[in-house]
Amino acid sequence: MEHPENDTQYIGLTVNQGVPQPPITNPYMTRRKRKPLPSAAEMVEGILKGDVTMLSRAVTLVESLSPDHQKLAQEVIEKCLPHSGNSKRIGITGVPGAGKSTSIDVFGLHVLKQGGKLAVLAIDPSSERTRGSILGDKTRMEKLSTHPGAFIRPSPSAGSLGGVARKTRETIILCEAAGYNNIFVETVGVGQSETAVHSMVDFFLLIQLAGTGDELQGIKRGIMEMADGIVINKADGDNIDRARLAQAQFKSALRLFPPTASGWSPEVLTYSGYFELGIPEVWDMIDRYFDFVMANGYFERRRREQARFWMYETIEEQLRNHFFQNPEIASMLAAKEEAVLANRLSSFIAARDVLERYFGKDSTEG
Amino acid sequence: MEHPENDTQYIGLTVNQGVPQPPITNPYMTRRKRKPLPSAAEMVEGILKGDVTMLSRAVTLVESLSPDHQKLAQEVIEKCLPHSGNSKRIGITGVPGAGKSTSIDVFGLHVLKQGGKLAVLAIDPSSERTRGSILGDKTRMEKLSTHPGAFIRPSPSAGSLGGVARKTRETIILCEAAGYNNIFVETVGVGQSETAVHSMVDFFLLIQLAGTGDELQGIKRGIMEMADGIVINKADGDNIDRARLAQAQFKSALRLFPPTASGWSPEVLTYSGYFELGIPEVWDMIDRYFDFVMANGYFERRRREQARFWMYETIEEQLRNHFFQNPEIASMLAAKEEAVLANRLSSFIAARDVLERYFGKDSTEG
Repeated sequence: MEHPENDTQYIGLTVNQGVPQPPITNPYMTRRKRKPLPSAAEMVEGILKGDVTMLSRAVTLVESLSPDHQKLAQEVIEKCLPHSGNSKRIGITGVPGAGKSTSIDVFGLHVLKQGGKLAVLAIDPSSERTRGSILGDKTRMEKLSTHPGAFIRPSPSAGSLGGVARKTRETIILCEAAGYNNIFVETVGVGQSETAVHSMVDFFLLIQLAGTGDELQGIKRGIMEMADGIVINKADGDNIDRARLAQAQFKSALRLFPPTASGWSPEVLTYSGYFELGIPEVWDMIDRYFDFVMANGYFERRRREQARFWMYETIEEQLRNHFFQNPEIASMLAAKEEAVLANRLSSFIAARDVLERYFGKDSTEG
Repeated sequence: MEHPENDTQYIGLTVNQGVPQPPITNPYMTRRKRKPLPSAAEMVEGILKGDVTMLSRAVTLVESLSPDHQKLAQEVIEKCLPHSGNSKRIGITGVPGAGKSTSIDVFGLHVLKQGGKLAVLAIDPSSERTRGSILGDKTRMEKLSTHPGAFIRPSPSAGSLGGVARKTRETIILCEAAGYNNIFVETVGVGQSETAVHSMVDFFLLIQLAGTGDELQGIKRGIMEMADGIVINKADGDNIDRARLAQAQFKSALRLFPPTASGWSPEVLTYSGYFELGIPEVWDMIDRYFDFVMANGYFERRRREQARFWMYETIEEQLRNHFFQNPEIASMLAAKEEAVLANRLSSFIAARDVLERYFGKDSTEG
């Protein structure tokens, strides 16, 4: 028998398949005349007061490709920075079908019941799915979307993973300055984005399903070892025994993994997002984690390391872009790559030839 | 009771601790006058005939920092390239204490009994340990070091991981051209080097020990998921039951992992390097892997992808070096990093400031 949750999932996934999507437009590009941009100071003032409209406009600036918008966005971020940092940043991943949206909906409500506010962000560099998310995010999280304490923002649209990740990380700063003390960063668990999410959150939650084989097809290798907690969804009705078995299996698998940098031992729990079972237990585990890493100093250390990481990551991305987006280099590379793939040219000689063109003959020697 | 193998391990590790090491000298720098360099054509001719002295000299050129040597090395590699590729490239990793040297010694002898030749290379960017290896490699692999079919070469000395990896990869080409149809690339399993090794071999073997906890302390997270095979060493005497239990645990853990890109299901075997038990079984497994990936086309595909990977990897490393080795950039970066770590400056603004200095004001906009 199909699990009740699957219906909505599959409908959600089917909507956009093969249907041509409208191009993504930036509201500030098409409506620039209608609504003048607030100044950086006005935006910051609004954000610090928790004004959701101002926060949304600032996030849109962060996502804009226009250099003017980018400049304004950076000013706003710089002024928000001293007011940021005061949140629990939680990454949530799992393959499509694991019930991520329903789970985030109920986890989010649970968190909001404890007071404070919640921002739900996403990283998903695949533009296909992003377009789906833009249409679907509000309906994907039914309860959260009408809650006054929740701010839901879909993944920044198309772009390199580095670019999308940068935007999400900047959005975290803005949300924190606006008083959101819980940040969820969602990702799909099938690509490179988990590493990026892992590098910007304090806790990394992996949603799994009972059963082996099919459900794991989509999950990327290496993700399990990044998790601070693994939670097995759909532990309800007929499925409870299978979920418990999966729990035992994951637990014993985790014992074979090397210890985490935090000293925390990742836990494995079962729950049901759809029937809202076991939600407080999952959240107790996450609270225990935060107590643990705050006490042993890992929390602060990791935050600082992440800040440094993103500085170098941004630099390296820009260095790459400057090189690979040079049209002469790009066409030369295509030819060299072909020769390398045919084993006519060594990787290193190909690289050297293209680098010599880029830097000029002398600078790559020695 | 201590396992007999541990003695030599600990002695090997202790020798260099705290003892000042002589500086690494390049034989061609100090002895240049004594022995004139052969021409590229002479070297290639020697290598293709399987002349070990010529092969060694070419590898030393690959490792040399002198631009002249580098130029000559590239010429030799380019001419060897059409004669390369015809080997089984096997990465072998495991923490110190897992009995890697003894294992490589007996695995190597087993492979050589089947005919052909074997080159044992290493990647270990930590110069500390590298100096140890230079002194120790010949004694670490007692049997192989006196075997006429074996060519043992320690890790290229100090340098960035990218540089060390490049040299090892170029050495693979030279060895293959010299008729080495089996290549082992050894790494220590504690740093970043496994990813580099994984990107240049066909099969990735992880040596583990029975028991949980202590033995795993050194292994890096994520390595288990890269393995095509896990072999549990020291399955002998009192230890057999523990090794079998570990085998069962690893097997069931692997079932929870997502499938590999090759379609191959990684196997878990036990053996004893010291008592030479279970060696043919380990090698049968590796042979089965090669049959499997040759039949389904993955072998060829992965080789091509690796060649492309190293082309881009080399380019990105050079782009990074050019930037980070610029003295003005380096000192500016240090100041910016400090501000980022103190949360006085956002990662992205810090990155932008330094990039603007590097490229000049205009080029980082837009």
